[in-house]
Amino acid sequence: MVKFSYSTRSATNFFFFFFLFLLSLTSVPVAEARVRYYKWEVKYEFKSPDCYKKLVITINGRSPGPTIIAQQNDTIIVEVKNSLLTENLAIHWHGIRQIGTPWFDGTEGVTQCPIVPGDTFKYQFVVDRPGTYLYHAHYGMQREAGLYGSIRVSPPAGQPEPFAYNYDRSIILTDWYHNSTYEQSVGLSSIPFVWVGEPHSLLIQGKGKFNCSTPGIPAGVCNASNPECSPYSMTIVPGKTYRLRVSSLTALSALSFQIEGHNMTVVEADGHYVQPFVVQNLFIYSGETYSVLIKADQDPSRNYWMTTNVVSRKPSTPPGQAIFNYYPNHPQRFPPTTSPSGPAWDDVEPRFAQSLAIKAHKDHIHKPPQIAHRSIVMLNTQNRVNGFTRWSVNNVSFNLPHTPYLISLKYKLNHVFSQVPPPDGYDFKTYNIYNVSDNPNATTSNAVYRLAFNTTVDVILQNANSMNNNTSETHPWHLHGHDFWVLGYGKGKFDIYNDQNKFNLVDPIMKNTVPVHPYGWTALRFQADNPGAWLFHCHIESHFFMGMGVVFEEGIDKVGKLPSSIMGCGESKGFNRP
Amino acid sequence: MVKFSYSTRSATNFFFFFFLFLLSLTSVPVAEARVRYYKWEVKYEFKSPDCYKKLVITINGRSPGPTIIAQQNDTIIVEVKNSLLTENLAIHWHGIRQIGTPWFDGTEGVTQCPIVPGDTFKYQFVVDRPGTYLYHAHYGMQREAGLYGSIRVSPPAGQPEPFAYNYDRSIILTDWYHNSTYEQSVGLSSIPFVWVGEPHSLLIQGKGKFNCSTPGIPAGVCNASNPECSPYSMTIVPGKTYRLRVSSLTALSALSFQIEGHNMTVVEADGHYVQPFVVQNLFIYSGETYSVLIKADQDPSRNYWMTTNVVSRKPSTPPGQAIFNYYPNHPQRFPPTTSPSGPAWDDVEPRFAQSLAIKAHKDHIHKPPQIAHRSIVMLNTQNRVNGFTRWSVNNVSFNLPHTPYLISLKYKLNHVFSQVPPPDGYDFKTYNIYNVSDNPNATTSNAVYRLAFNTTVDVILQNANSMNNNTSETHPWHLHGHDFWVLGYGKGKFDIYNDQNKFNLVDPIMKNTVPVHPYGWTALRFQADNPGAWLFHCHIESHFFMGMGVVFEEGIDKVGKLPSSIMGCGESKGFNRP
Repeated sequence: MVKFSYSTRSATNFFFFFFLFLLSLTSVPVAEARVRYYKWEVKYEFKSPDCYKKLVITINGRSPGPTIIAQQNDTIIVEVKNSLLTENLAIHWHGIRQIGTPWFDGTEGVTQCPIVPGDTFKYQFVVDRPGTYLYHAHYGMQREAGLYGSIRVSPPAGQPEPFAYNYDRSIILTDWYHNSTYEQSVGLSSIPFVWVGEPHSLLIQGKGKFNCSTPGIPAGVCNASNPECSPYSMTIVPGKTYRLRVSSLTALSALSFQIEGHNMTVVEADGHYVQPFVVQNLFIYSGETYSVLIKADQDPSRNYWMTTNVVSRKPSTPPGQAIFNYYPNHPQRFPPTTSPSGPAWDDVEPRFAQSLAIKAHKDHIHKPPQIAHRSIVMLNTQNRVNGFTRWSVNNVSFNLPHTPYLISLKYKLNHVFSQVPPPDGYDFKTYNIYNVSDNPNATTSNAVYRLAFNTTVDVILQNANSMNNNTSETHPWHLHGHDFWVLGYGKGKFDIYNDQNKFNLVDPIMKNTVPVHPYGWTALRFQADNPGAWLFHCHIESHFFMGMGVVFEEGIDKVGKLPSSIMGCGESKGFNRP
Repeated sequence: MVKFSYSTRSATNFFFFFFLFLLSLTSVPVAEARVRYYKWEVKYEFKSPDCYKKLVITINGRSPGPTIIAQQNDTIIVEVKNSLLTENLAIHWHGIRQIGTPWFDGTEGVTQCPIVPGDTFKYQFVVDRPGTYLYHAHYGMQREAGLYGSIRVSPPAGQPEPFAYNYDRSIILTDWYHNSTYEQSVGLSSIPFVWVGEPHSLLIQGKGKFNCSTPGIPAGVCNASNPECSPYSMTIVPGKTYRLRVSSLTALSALSFQIEGHNMTVVEADGHYVQPFVVQNLFIYSGETYSVLIKADQDPSRNYWMTTNVVSRKPSTPPGQAIFNYYPNHPQRFPPTTSPSGPAWDDVEPRFAQSLAIKAHKDHIHKPPQIAHRSIVMLNTQNRVNGFTRWSVNNVSFNLPHTPYLISLKYKLNHVFSQVPPPDGYDFKTYNIYNVSDNPNATTSNAVYRLAFNTTVDVILQNANSMNNNTSETHPWHLHGHDFWVLGYGKGKFDIYNDQNKFNLVDPIMKNTVPVHPYGWTALRFQADNPGAWLFHCHIESHFFMGMGVVFEEGIDKVGKLPSSIMGCGESKGFNRP
């Protein structure tokens, strides 16, 4: 039987649900799957998430937006109304594979046309695996303007998880700029390149603290006593165990997350159960989600700091702070201590070690295919292309077309994007990954990788030096439409003859987002078994904007009839006749 | 014969023109009409028009955009590429009646869907009258972000004008905000209402001067020695007579324009020849264009100030300054004098007097119809509607729908907008225009005025007190698709029984934009002879945004086949099949 719940207060939905209810009476019970129905209005509002007032993109007045709470196999319906004034919109459901619904991945230019102001777009998809997921804007740089939120999917009733806890909580970690996405993006695409700089603050569940005494702040803009920027406080009951779902949607920053005086046991990553291991601080990269267990076993007469610190880049952003509030202390009572300072930003070893520690839970191993049909090595570099500063894969910097690939591929509009296949590798033998990148032959392209359907594909992400001396950044790569096995991490240049022998084919974790560490490599394997067009990209907002991504096509002939709602832009004008 | 000129430097156009050239060889000469072809790219760039760096919408890198220079009966083709990141676009050709091409009026929500990022939209229309016109964005509040420019149409060769001059120049006067249009529009549509305040500076042909020593300016944003904000300088040759085309596209301000020590003879208004009269300062309202003649007959050993001053609102914006540069003095040499201070901002009498002085040139009178078939009185008020601050006409505040009227009217999509006709008048007898507006029954609506085709329509704009004590603002009303006769101006409440007898039916000027003065009325007459849907609105950017406008429909059944390029949004999804 289909059951219904809804999270909108609009009375106008009553009849819709009544209608569905009538429908449900006529059907025979088959499975416990609900329809979770949301009505969202997206607009700009002035908010002060870190005490500094600026325009924020909100959902129903909030940023982060409402948390979607569902059970495995539920159908999520989100009707998004674009109430921005002149700006379009698209929302991606991060970690949801969209099996059978590749058109609702929400990736502008890849799976849909943008939603224009005044329009309402209906996303509808099934959440087919329990775990911790996200949603966020996937158009321009709107994600970092505040359009994001959590998705929490529980297993079916009666299906046990390999760990126990009393309460379940979600937080999203972000970094925050006072500059608008317009200001940032114009700088990034200017000659000379104008870099926005480090974020102004770190937010925990949408709250942070900027120092309003910083010189040069216009009058009336920053108010340290604004209740909007009181620290996020998570109230816990002494003695209980908490499952904390921690996600990162930073624009730029790699983070270390820590709860003063409490260890954390990592039990889930990107929707997959992890063989538990204990950390004092959790390294987390943009696009990743983790569940950690925390026992409230410390002195309950006080509160504790929850902190985030920037790692991998020299931090000039102050730490993010929230309060781990032992009930019945006041939720806003500051801990008597100074917050933990976090690990050294430039020590890559513990980050490497954490990556290596994440393995599939021994009772939940998805065995990977033992061989791959195709192996693509992707050299990550920064380049100068026609005077612009860009990020590239194998010296090809990605340009998003304005006709979504899903439409152009399905309708064989071959003139819409380059038909020259992007390269499967780079010049392994002579390229020195420790040198300042000097790739005069770098180009831009909107070509896609076409994968044979149902084959197994390896991707080796190869990091290198950027255009600055002695600098190699951490890039978190996110794959749409799939989970991949993480077969290994290494330092230096991937050895295509020998390093494959070191792959973990026994108990690799599956993920959808994974870092490639400075001067290192990361090896992934996935099955090209989800018909559609799928973005694979660095989840740093500015890096993808500057070309750090690719698109995979697989089984396009198996994609069902595209809904007219995704069409209407570029060469798909008029394809959206109702 | 059709001759061609073009103003794009793109080499890729060569073949297009060569093709047109070949075509032209096969045609028989019939008339001297050219095709003026423009290729424009619209994007955001950082500019410092008044020394303060902010994002500006540019055309081919410039704001104001390129001047369109054409001859009567030329065909203008502008291919606009939207290179904004996430924002749509529409461009209105202000003063061009678009006879036979109502779909290229460029008014988002009325005549077209917005142009989405990545798309190129082709505007094509005939400039059928000589005169001074404008173009500017007509979507959201993009006009005041810098997207505007001049159109100058000369009469056919050999057709004399009723005045003589040696040189022809154009300048556009604007006011300028440092806040983004996003910040402004969110404030205007918030509860409580947040008013952006007075403009930061006045620009003359895109250049102004903000005081960089103003407290609270962030570091590095304002640079008084930036050459981008050196004053606009118009170089003139002593003894010569200049035709200066002066236009206003202010967001808010009514202006007085003056050239120190020089009289100006007004000879043209909105494309119509004026019976010449001499002014020391020209009052000009947003949306108006004038030609004035200036004889360079002063001491040529120095330069002179050109200045703009705010009138009608208590000015807190400093005057705009440019340099009237007598050759061969250095163009940037400041005049030895202080610039003229301009008229008292709150003295309405000289503004009234100028309005009354503008009459059709005696040899160029378009005789108005002597009677009107319909008379619509439009009470201009500020109201509170559902907690929002709005502007209204007869207590109806206008909401723009997202399916353009031209499409919904032509395709009879009656559900798209309210079918309740808006009122032709207000409660003349009891409404006190001198009282603070208290109209508890004000509503919002997107209904249109449907005019019988080829009838003559009078509109009486009736001003009133706003929601502030002793305040009545000047509203410049602009009509799309038509010129109207200006039959009269009056003070106080229009007397529907007696004031019609005072109408000037002998030599009224025709215009497309006209002010209604504080506590006064303005009477217009036009012929509903241009099939289409046409906006009539207050040209103050924030006032139209807050509902101060109406739409006229006339002869919709006579509108030709709509081009697919204007469709694709709202209920016209899929109507744009190529």
